[in-house]
Amino acid sequence: MPELITSRQNARVKEAVKLRAARQRAKQRRFLIDGVREIQRALAFGIEPLEVFVCPELCTTLAAKQIVEQISQSTAVVSPVTAEVFEKLCFGERIEGVLVVAQTPDRSLNRLSLPPSPLVAVLAGLEKPGNVGAILRTADGAGLDAAIIADGQTDLFNPNTIRASLGTVFAPHVCAATTAEVLAKLSEWQLPIIAARPDAATLYTAADYRRGAAIVLGNEAAGLSTAWQQKEIQTVQLPMRGIADSLNVSATAAVLCYEAQRQRQADA
Amino acid sequence: MPELITSRQNARVKEAVKLRAARQRAKQRRFLIDGVREIQRALAFGIEPLEVFVCPELCTTLAAKQIVEQISQSTAVVSPVTAEVFEKLCFGERIEGVLVVAQTPDRSLNRLSLPPSPLVAVLAGLEKPGNVGAILRTADGAGLDAAIIADGQTDLFNPNTIRASLGTVFAPHVCAATTAEVLAKLSEWQLPIIAARPDAATLYTAADYRRGAAIVLGNEAAGLSTAWQQKEIQTVQLPMRGIADSLNVSATAAVLCYEAQRQRQADA
Repeated sequence: MPELITSRQNARVKEAVKLRAARQRAKQRRFLIDGVREIQRALAFGIEPLEVFVCPELCTTLAAKQIVEQISQSTAVVSPVTAEVFEKLCFGERIEGVLVVAQTPDRSLNRLSLPPSPLVAVLAGLEKPGNVGAILRTADGAGLDAAIIADGQTDLFNPNTIRASLGTVFAPHVCAATTAEVLAKLSEWQLPIIAARPDAATLYTAADYRRGAAIVLGNEAAGLSTAWQQKEIQTVQLPMRGIADSLNVSATAAVLCYEAQRQRQADA
Repeated sequence: MPELITSRQNARVKEAVKLRAARQRAKQRRFLIDGVREIQRALAFGIEPLEVFVCPELCTTLAAKQIVEQISQSTAVVSPVTAEVFEKLCFGERIEGVLVVAQTPDRSLNRLSLPPSPLVAVLAGLEKPGNVGAILRTADGAGLDAAIIADGQTDLFNPNTIRASLGTVFAPHVCAATTAEVLAKLSEWQLPIIAARPDAATLYTAADYRRGAAIVLGNEAAGLSTAWQQKEIQTVQLPMRGIADSLNVSATAAVLCYEAQRQRQADA
């Protein structure tokens, strides 16, 4: 076992903490994974751990110990730390005693392969990592074939996205690209595009998702950008029967993803 | 205009700040409303303002000024404060310059009146105010006839609930009661109870919501308590087709509320 890190000023610790900032994640092409379940899912999807910080006092569950054991078999550096040091490293109230520094995987659109008539979620310009993560979790549950972040206002491996997604963000069918790249791919795939808009004339239940579809969800405040307002793009609305004029984007995503699958299963 | 409050130690200010704590809200039967839109909705639903703190420097939008003007016509005390004082009063990053102290309204189940074959959401033992608020917003959008908090782990007028609900929490058809009271009422109303459970045998699309239903959503971590596990209660599941084993409760609520209304509209 390597030497215990007891100083919060330790260079490896300071380097890791830097990765809480998006700019450093982009620069270093590395990111942090908090949480045993999230780490398990990352490893299962082939994310490569570079380093693991372990606090023996806090790393007490069997699952946490197994994760550390598994990572020890790889080339990753294992760094034991005191509870005081771990407190500096960890995120929010997660004190499972294990934190992984991982290599940012390539999640470009070119690597995505899809089945015929796929169902894809497009997250167009979303701002809040919590919403991105929540939608990825829902898209996973609904069994979508891919989720594509178009011009995300936050990076894919933001700690809040990872947490809200419960680690589903690590699936290789979760990609990020520019809006232009996404539109080009959707066109290449000849995939019908169905975008959610509060003022659309068509009800979401009247759209047909059975031949495959890209379900597009816009920014929390500004909605869909002009790139998603073209005549080839069908817009649909969820009825708003109360006093509020919109749903949260993650609620909209849940309703659309499950409606699409309901139609497809009914047809199967 | 009454005298400007310039001290963060002012007695009225200190009394108002206390209401950020649930215990004080319960004791004083008063609560705080942040945000112009939320205040508008509260007033529209007849919530009674007792006091309004206004920071003239920050209260710059027309909507904010109109709200202050409207409240000035009531018996509520108008207290102008400096920006420094307002910073102590306000919640999170909301700096719209207006904060209302309101009287907690009676939201007991006895006051609820429902149409025939109503659609009702029951939030059974939820913990997170953000989830409660998100579900109330969705239930409002879907046009449910009522939302009932059963044994809520958080009070109805928690600032996070108010914010996540966008003020829809103020509708009089949002009630809170004990689980026993809710079960008694549902029985009195002879309303079919449909509860979401990950291990249910029936798909949520196979349930019939057209004769009215109480859609029950359980605690985020523990799920449904035993009170909601009776043979008269139908359980339904949302298919989980990915790697995660559950959806967020607010995503589940969105899918169920909109599926119920889809069935009811298709039948109409």
